Amino acid sequence: MSPLHALRSPAPTSIAKDATALADDRERLFARATAIAADLRARGAALDRDGRPPFSEITELKAAGLLNALHPPEIGGGGLDWVDGLRLVRILARGESSIGQLLGYHFVNSQYISWAADDSDLAWRLSSETVAKSLYWGAAVNPRDPGLVLTRQDDHYVLNGRKTFSTGARISDRINASAAFGDQIASLVLPTDRPGYIAHDDWDNIGQRLSDSGSVEFKDFPVHDSDFLLPLAAPDAAPKVQATFNTPLIQLVFANFYIGTAEGALAEALDYVRDTTRPWITSGVERAADDPHILERVGEFRAALKAAAALADSAGLAVQKALARGPGVTERERGEAAIEAYESKVNATHVSLDVTARVFELMGARATAGHYRFDRYWRNVRTHTLHDPVFYKAREVGDFALNDRIPTPSLYS
Amino acid sequence: MSPLHALRSPAPTSIAKDATALADDRERLFARATAIAADLRARGAALDRDGRPPFSEITELKAAGLLNALHPPEIGGGGLDWVDGLRLVRILARGESSIGQLLGYHFVNSQYISWAADDSDLAWRLSSETVAKSLYWGAAVNPRDPGLVLTRQDDHYVLNGRKTFSTGARISDRINASAAFGDQIASLVLPTDRPGYIAHDDWDNIGQRLSDSGSVEFKDFPVHDSDFLLPLAAPDAAPKVQATFNTPLIQLVFANFYIGTAEGALAEALDYVRDTTRPWITSGVERAADDPHILERVGEFRAALKAAAALADSAGLAVQKALARGPGVTERERGEAAIEAYESKVNATHVSLDVTARVFELMGARATAGHYRFDRYWRNVRTHTLHDPVFYKAREVGDFALNDRIPTPSLYS
Amino acid sequence: MSPLHALRSPAPTSIAKDATALADDRERLFARATAIAADLRARGAALDRDGRPPFSEITELKAAGLLNALHPPEIGGGGLDWVDGLRLVRILARGESSIGQLLGYHFVNSQYISWAADDSDLAWRLSSETVAKSLYWGAAVNPRDPGLVLTRQDDHYVLNGRKTFSTGARISDRINASAAFGDQIASLVLPTDRPGYIAHDDWDNIGQRLSDSGSVEFKDFPVHDSDFLLPLAAPDAAPKVQATFNTPLIQLVFANFYIGTAEGALAEALDYVRDTTRPWITSGVERAADDPHILERVGEFRAALKAAAALADSAGLAVQKALARGPGVTERERGEAAIEAYESKVNATHVSLDVTARVFELMGARATAGHYRFDRYWRNVRTHTLHDPVFYKAREVGDFALNDRIPTPSLYS
Amino acid sequence: MSPLHALRSPAPTSIAKDATALADDRERLFARATAIAADLRARGAALDRDGRPPFSEITELKAAGLLNALHPPEIGGGGLDWVDGLRLVRILARGESSIGQLLGYHFVNSQYISWAADDSDLAWRLSSETVAKSLYWGAAVNPRDPGLVLTRQDDHYVLNGRKTFSTGARISDRINASAAFGDQIASLVLPTDRPGYIAHDDWDNIGQRLSDSGSVEFKDFPVHDSDFLLPLAAPDAAPKVQATFNTPLIQLVFANFYIGTAEGALAEALDYVRDTTRPWITSGVERAADDPHILERVGEFRAALKAAAALADSAGLAVQKALARGPGVTERERGEAAIEAYESKVNATHVSLDVTARVFELMGARATAGHYRFDRYWRNVRTHTLHDPVFYKAREVGDFALNDRIPTPSLYS
Repeated sequence: MSPLHALRSPAPTSIAKDATALADDRERLFARATAIAADLRARGAALDRDGRPPFSEITELKAAGLLNALHPPEIGGGGLDWVDGLRLVRILARGESSIGQLLGYHFVNSQYISWAADDSDLAWRLSSETVAKSLYWGAAVNPRDPGLVLTRQDDHYVLNGRKTFSTGARISDRINASAAFGDQIASLVLPTDRPGYIAHDDWDNIGQRLSDSGSVEFKDFPVHDSDFLLPLAAPDAAPKVQATFNTPLIQLVFANFYIGTAEGALAEALDYVRDTTRPWITSGVERAADDPHILERVGEFRAALKAAAALADSAGLAVQKALARGPGVTERERGEAAIEAYESKVNATHVSLDVTARVFELMGARATAGHYRFDRYWRNVRTHTLHDPVFYKAREVGDFALNDRIPTPSLYS
Repeated sequence: MSPLHALRSPAPTSIAKDATALADDRERLFARATAIAADLRARGAALDRDGRPPFSEITELKAAGLLNALHPPEIGGGGLDWVDGLRLVRILARGESSIGQLLGYHFVNSQYISWAADDSDLAWRLSSETVAKSLYWGAAVNPRDPGLVLTRQDDHYVLNGRKTFSTGARISDRINASAAFGDQIASLVLPTDRPGYIAHDDWDNIGQRLSDSGSVEFKDFPVHDSDFLLPLAAPDAAPKVQATFNTPLIQLVFANFYIGTAEGALAEALDYVRDTTRPWITSGVERAADDPHILERVGEFRAALKAAAALADSAGLAVQKALARGPGVTERERGEAAIEAYESKVNATHVSLDVTARVFELMGARATAGHYRFDRYWRNVRTHTLHDPVFYKAREVGDFALNDRIPTPSLYS
Repeated sequence: MSPLHALRSPAPTSIAKDATALADDRERLFARATAIAADLRARGAALDRDGRPPFSEITELKAAGLLNALHPPEIGGGGLDWVDGLRLVRILARGESSIGQLLGYHFVNSQYISWAADDSDLAWRLSSETVAKSLYWGAAVNPRDPGLVLTRQDDHYVLNGRKTFSTGARISDRINASAAFGDQIASLVLPTDRPGYIAHDDWDNIGQRLSDSGSVEFKDFPVHDSDFLLPLAAPDAAPKVQATFNTPLIQLVFANFYIGTAEGALAEALDYVRDTTRPWITSGVERAADDPHILERVGEFRAALKAAAALADSAGLAVQKALARGPGVTERERGEAAIEAYESKVNATHVSLDVTARVFELMGARATAGHYRFDRYWRNVRTHTLHDPVFYKAREVGDFALNDRIPTPSLYS
Repeated sequence: MSPLHALRSPAPTSIAKDATALADDRERLFARATAIAADLRARGAALDRDGRPPFSEITELKAAGLLNALHPPEIGGGGLDWVDGLRLVRILARGESSIGQLLGYHFVNSQYISWAADDSDLAWRLSSETVAKSLYWGAAVNPRDPGLVLTRQDDHYVLNGRKTFSTGARISDRINASAAFGDQIASLVLPTDRPGYIAHDDWDNIGQRLSDSGSVEFKDFPVHDSDFLLPLAAPDAAPKVQATFNTPLIQLVFANFYIGTAEGALAEALDYVRDTTRPWITSGVERAADDPHILERVGEFRAALKAAAALADSAGLAVQKALARGPGVTERERGEAAIEAYESKVNATHVSLDVTARVFELMGARATAGHYRFDRYWRNVRTHTLHDPVFYKAREVGDFALNDRIPTPSLYS
């Protein structure tokens, strides 16, 4: 069931797709994602070297219908559930880690409004427009970096301030933003083509170099009443349970693009071993691909990646099921599902770091030549796995197992 | 679909159970397995100390209908598929590792005849009798230990020889056996209550102490034509593809009881930490269960176990799907499914060894008191994970990934 | 320099041994330790099974002069420094882990009096008697278990109470004990052959089964003024810096007997692989000892053990050097040396657990036969490495590295 | 004893330095190395970004007397032994990994002539000139890349051909080279300032970017009789045992600069944690440097690094002792010492990869900012640890331990 299921009633579906048609659509989306990933991998070294915002790559995702994969068929979306959506993230990350990340972030940011909005017409309208125009959704809501201030000006508001990191800053069409308005919090949905939105091109990190995660500035950015996703609220007002699903889902986005990145690294290494690696002089074998030590390692990496992917899928299903309960979902249900997501995140972190670092042992010394940029796989997962400390994620899981405590909802938990 | 599906046609089902009834049956089997596991865990230290063949425990499994869980409902079985069957193995192993092992071995040995037999009436008859009498099935077929010789005597045969290790030797009602007959191989199904079957009580290993894996001797054991599962065959005759599914399935049995054993160890450790462990003097916390280092470890162990279980489930599904193709399943399909099983085996090996060894770090020094016998969890997985070298399993997986070679079917591959 | 160096002045040496004679003595001690270890290993399975206090084994250590190895030559001791003493511990642990432990505990307990006593004549007298009679020294001072109470009775004192764990309880000739006397603390040196000393034979743990670590009870045990090592003191009185060297040294004893135990496990496994293990059926080699995966693992285990031993030696030297500064040693010097000891402890913990658990992967399934009891190596290190949590030891090291804080002296730090 | 000790007799020392003066020299060399390392670390990000041949850095090493540290004092060298020399490598690698590597390569290449040359006058002359002019020594002898051909031309020879990788190609003053001359092998010592020596600036790898390891070409490079280090020899002629010490020593150079690089990474991370890392929001501590999980990790990294360094030192001593036996050293002695070196190499490989990858977990997400280039530590060890496969090094150690086989001398073993 789509997370937007609640929206179906107000907007009766004129032409309901049948199951076969939906299955065909699904297959088509997966095929396109696979093809795009192959192309990205072929251009991976150059993309990583340049580290530019991936304008044309996002355009490709739009053309392929991938940005709309999770929206309901009734408004022209792909109708996929989160399990499938997260698999698409994984597939794209095999080609280029940042593109997997960007697709996943968009999924969460664009679906968020349907859980968070009190006004289902508003959510419906925003979603319909999103699908119709293939809009990319970003966010500027990092609570550790409380920089945006909204003030009243004449008949409207103006937004000012800066966010240090905003993934997809330059490629976004819409942005979920939160801002201080006096001692209240405003939840806004903003288009990025108004004057006053300045996405600085200052993202230059050792990994996820295409993730377009630079700083964003708002300078007297005009805000209207219709830009409010929610009524003004007290800063300590608890959000609806449903509206807190962005955290387990974004953590599953992380897990899946980590795994996909490592799968891509292993695939690339296997090609290299088959085509390029010379057997070691004392190995007694004629092809590096028959070296017992290399074979054992490949088997170990694959087993670890398969386990990580299986857990990512089953955790995705758990969160999807909880989300499908709709507005009545309880804190406990959300908490239990979140724990599964965090288990997947912890596991994917370790596996992806290990595999991306050690594929070099399969390929040998010459694979460190600069032009391959094979280190990008490790740099990518090394960079993003620091988003929040893996030991605190493990600790939350432990606290649930030992003390039956569910995580306190936040943008990290 | 049940692996015995081919048998349905000759025996039209008079009273087909409906889906709800089957679901209820399934739930009941899981509930009973869970209850038995809890009882086993409570008696675990004593059972491990004594290390006796688990006669009464197997009687319990029989009474609970667990031995028949995979047989088709048409003959009174539980109708579960392998995914569920393997989960039952995992659940029982949480209570006592050997009991999980024994249930899994029985599943494979008793289902084997329906894949291997050319004569579906024979398989049907054997299965029906098995369900009706709740028979436990063992095996004496280890190819590294070719000890059984069949000879002609008057109007029948006699079997002589010895097998060093035969899991379930004393508790088995039926045994799959292979024996040399001149330069041919005989595949036999033998009842253990005939004179000449001697199960020595000589199993005394550091782990799996209830697995009843001692030596078996046949002394002028009478064999009749009706005991032949298959016609005599050349030793190098390739078995039907279907008949080689016992290896991926037994390897999945391994994976699942390793994981279950480790899950049991963690559950026991968590109870101990909550109830008994004192906070460390410099920890600054009042309960050991709030120690950050303990919480982090618990989270790590749980994440690893969840990934292992998710892979075991998805690999179980892959093998189940291949098996469900029936007699037409190809070597390639069998090979690809087997690789998934072996990936699960490799992963479960590492995770179970690590968790069972390290739960002591949660509990602290006093948990090494002899009467707890908490080391049994590690001893159990340490013992059985040596069944076949994990590095050769990893190597088979690597050979598939790198060189697209499927494993050559054998009792190990 | 011997830690008893301060004692040399009051007792002029009549016959000073020359360097050559001392070197010969040293060689002889090492040769005897090696021979005893070989004998212990040959009897290891039986010793572990019985788990009795090692009376005859300690008698052997006495006969070999090993208990006196660290005492000054002037009183008939071996004159070895701590680096050598700790190596002897390691050597003995190769044969039997508990015997290594017991030698090391004796070294610390018997040397302790020369650092702690204010009265050097007393220390000299106790040491001389120790050497002359080859006395074994134990202790009953665990601060987490404050059970001993001293009271005045007529012209003497009586001691009452119980200690849950007292290593060497039944084999000890002398015991360092601390007891409450009103609101003061008494530091005592007690002979164990007085009435009222009851060493219960209640040690039954999964490892270190010969370490004789059962409970000790004092029932109206008579204590005289001459039994006081130190004047009565306030419970919070800081001991002399020198008197706190027992902790880094006992932690180095731990590290060394963990390493020795793992070295013994590897040696035993290599013998088994050479003599007994069959090559794996798909290995393509004729001897298991030529299997590439086994060779790689052996190399890895050996490299890890060599690093652990090298660090144990260099940490031993650091503590020895600090101790050799005599009564003027500062808290900072003690702290820096202790950190090196704790680094060794942390490292030895991981390496010994890993190697003792994984040697089975070299030997294969049949090495789990109960009569070998090869699991004892792991059980031994698993049991004792829980003495104090390794994560808190790592944390102390981290606190020094990050924050330049030295450990607060205690019986754990 | 210096490896050049055999050279002392022909050149009577006019002014023998006394022990104190030598100790002062030693201290001065270590102090300079430490100061240079600090400066390198401060400039590390920029040096790594530019990846230029380190001309000025090598000039600094020359000015500090570091290139001559191992030469005998009689000719103006520092008189240090290999244990100290390898420590200098480690110290420099803390600042910049490639500079540590380059110092170590020079040590081996420049000392090699004193072991390999039959003519001790020649070795003496070359060494004296080396010290007098502070010459840097490289090599072009990779046997997997047999590219150099020597031919006769008039009264001299000419050298032609290409080597793909030649560390220090552009900074070298002298080069050990081997070339084919008909069906014989010529061992040459060549100055790099003759016409015909072309060091291409084509080194561009992901790590060790300052190691100047590009290709070298010889185009009609003139060679004279006086350039021959050894007489022409058959390609399969076994070298003198002494002349094969370059391999264990270069492997120890590897181990030491891996360790040094990881020590540098940890030092940099600790500074960053103290100064920059913010405590995690749910940590309950006010400084990241008090976070229990960070403290534990720091302790673990430090313990592992200390063990690696202790083994590197003790292995260095073993090789130094074998080398000090002079021309009479046996193959077995060389083999046993080499095994210690390879154990150190295996251990240092694992530890340095682990620490350099995981220091990011201490520092947190912002430490991935591109301008820090903190990933260079991992890139450096990841690149060079592939020089020869670590699993084959482990296997050689295993083969010695299990089968008592010493490595067959080669440029890898």
